[in-house]
Amino acid sequence: MVMQEGFKYPDTKAYEYVKRELRSHGVGLTDIAKIVWEMEYKYIPDLEVGKIIEEIDNVLHKREVLNNIMTGLFLDKAAQRGVVDYPLQEIIENDAGVYGVDETLAIQIANIYGSVGVSNFGYLDKAKSGIMIDLDNDNGKVNTFIDDIVGAIAAAVCGKLAHATA
Amino acid sequence: MVMQEGFKYPDTKAYEYVKRELRSHGVGLTDIAKIVWEMEYKYIPDLEVGKIIEEIDNVLHKREVLNNIMTGLFLDKAAQRGVVDYPLQEIIENDAGVYGVDETLAIQIANIYGSVGVSNFGYLDKAKSGIMIDLDNDNGKVNTFIDDIVGAIAAAVCGKLAHATA
Amino acid sequence: MVMQEGFKYPDTKAYEYVKRELRSHGVGLTDIAKIVWEMEYKYIPDLEVGKIIEEIDNVLHKREVLNNIMTGLFLDKAAQRGVVDYPLQEIIENDAGVYGVDETLAIQIANIYGSVGVSNFGYLDKAKSGIMIDLDNDNGKVNTFIDDIVGAIAAAVCGKLAHATA
Amino acid sequence: MVMQEGFKYPDTKAYEYVKRELRSHGVGLTDIAKIVWEMEYKYIPDLEVGKIIEEIDNVLHKREVLNNIMTGLFLDKAAQRGVVDYPLQEIIENDAGVYGVDETLAIQIANIYGSVGVSNFGYLDKAKSGIMIDLDNDNGKVNTFIDDIVGAIAAAVCGKLAHATA
Repeated sequence: MVMQEGFKYPDTKAYEYVKRELRSHGVGLTDIAKIVWEMEYKYIPDLEVGKIIEEIDNVLHKREVLNNIMTGLFLDKAAQRGVVDYPLQEIIENDAGVYGVDETLAIQIANIYGSVGVSNFGYLDKAKSGIMIDLDNDNGKVNTFIDDIVGAIAAAVCGKLAHATA
Repeated sequence: MVMQEGFKYPDTKAYEYVKRELRSHGVGLTDIAKIVWEMEYKYIPDLEVGKIIEEIDNVLHKREVLNNIMTGLFLDKAAQRGVVDYPLQEIIENDAGVYGVDETLAIQIANIYGSVGVSNFGYLDKAKSGIMIDLDNDNGKVNTFIDDIVGAIAAAVCGKLAHATA
Repeated sequence: MVMQEGFKYPDTKAYEYVKRELRSHGVGLTDIAKIVWEMEYKYIPDLEVGKIIEEIDNVLHKREVLNNIMTGLFLDKAAQRGVVDYPLQEIIENDAGVYGVDETLAIQIANIYGSVGVSNFGYLDKAKSGIMIDLDNDNGKVNTFIDDIVGAIAAAVCGKLAHATA
Repeated sequence: MVMQEGFKYPDTKAYEYVKRELRSHGVGLTDIAKIVWEMEYKYIPDLEVGKIIEEIDNVLHKREVLNNIMTGLFLDKAAQRGVVDYPLQEIIENDAGVYGVDETLAIQIANIYGSVGVSNFGYLDKAKSGIMIDLDNDNGKVNTFIDDIVGAIAAAVCGKLAHATA
């Protein structure tokens, strides 16, 4: 379909949707802030959680970030409901290691803050940290995208902080 | 959910799904081959459509390619049915220029054959060519991902051919 | 080498170096602004060159952008002087179509403003426009990176403008 | 400069250059294989170093891989000799955390084997492993690109193995 005359990007609705959906997965901004703190406290001595939460909120106002998050969250939901076409349904449901689209969306989020953000995401994706472990072990739930999304938001903020303090 | 013991990536099913879905959008391998030929005939004098179709078929056997295509096709379908959460539903439905996830999946496909593939995709995304124009003008249908997917497959094959003949 | 205690990223020097080097290649901000205008005037009716130059200047203050530009400009210069190791020297000197590192640095610049920026770069890389044509035809000079850099800056600004007006 | 009539990409010279330069940094294929084994032995029970070396050799025959490696190795060398323009010279010399071009080239290498390769690289970039630690601590030497290159080759091979066994 062609874009409707007068369509405006729904910035506020997108931001609120993302915050609400993260919360419904048990992910608060403080959980993400803890991951960032864990990654950065060695490099930024006086780093405060309040400051990190502020930066997360900034990142969550970027459209590119919101679009990738909303898409990933919807794909998890659709797979949870079992309404995705086969064989994609079983690939997402099984969080198949060679799927890669979850990482692709996450990398795009992290890359907004440069290639250093991407490295941070890659590390978090393997090492897992804090709430990411809980999400990864949340059996019975399709959490294929959500853990990468959380890691990507944290990685983006790490990238942003690195630039701010260099 | 954690990967089930014994889960095997469904290569054949994925390939067949993609071919069938492309066909249901009126996209045959010959349509994609024509886009490639249009891009490359100046550089590769004796380029034949049969050879291009063979290369497209090769590209369509790569899992990273299949995964990104399947995901994009499903998102178009879900938006067509109106089952995507708001506000993502209206963003995809309107093919909003600032959505970008359609380009992200396409770029990931094209990049499998290197950064030259990405440039080719970018060109096709703007210039549109052959079947891509029809898809873009197909009013009443959500074709947000499909035109980028077609462009990305063509771009990937262009990248592959460029390497083969350099 | 490990980072020296007290090393500070040289923001101002990097910005001034890039402006000076672009000028020494005959590239002014107005030349880049013309490329942007050509890409965007259809979508943004009252777009003014002054506004575009302001946005280019903003983009040229981003470290990720500066780092990729400086690296590309240096590689062109080193190949011009003939001091690059073989066979990389002849690959850059010939602007080999399968080199791809010029596109990789450019894509990284464009991607700071999202995947839409990358598409814009890909288009400009193929279609060439304005000063990019002159650079590409500047015989006797190694201009392998500079034309992609100019295209990437323009593409980044297009991405930025697209977000600002959507 | 425009590509000379009859220029052929020097595949063999590029491969031999890369192997020789890696060796001159004390990096053998076995060192890279050990990093891969460390990452993958949990997932691929009967993984043998000989098989990994074979895969590394395969990866080192891809032009996109060779081009990014040669470019990074040359930049390290030029900075070691002190012949890079300022301020880029001091940015590379100090391995400044916000430079990012080293990661960009590495990510492009890793991404040839999909987004899973990129995650693996990000992990190795932070966690460092085996020879990467030695390179990182090799004081007096500019090793800004080489450690990322080693990590990227290892990550690419991990990505390739993951696909082969899924």
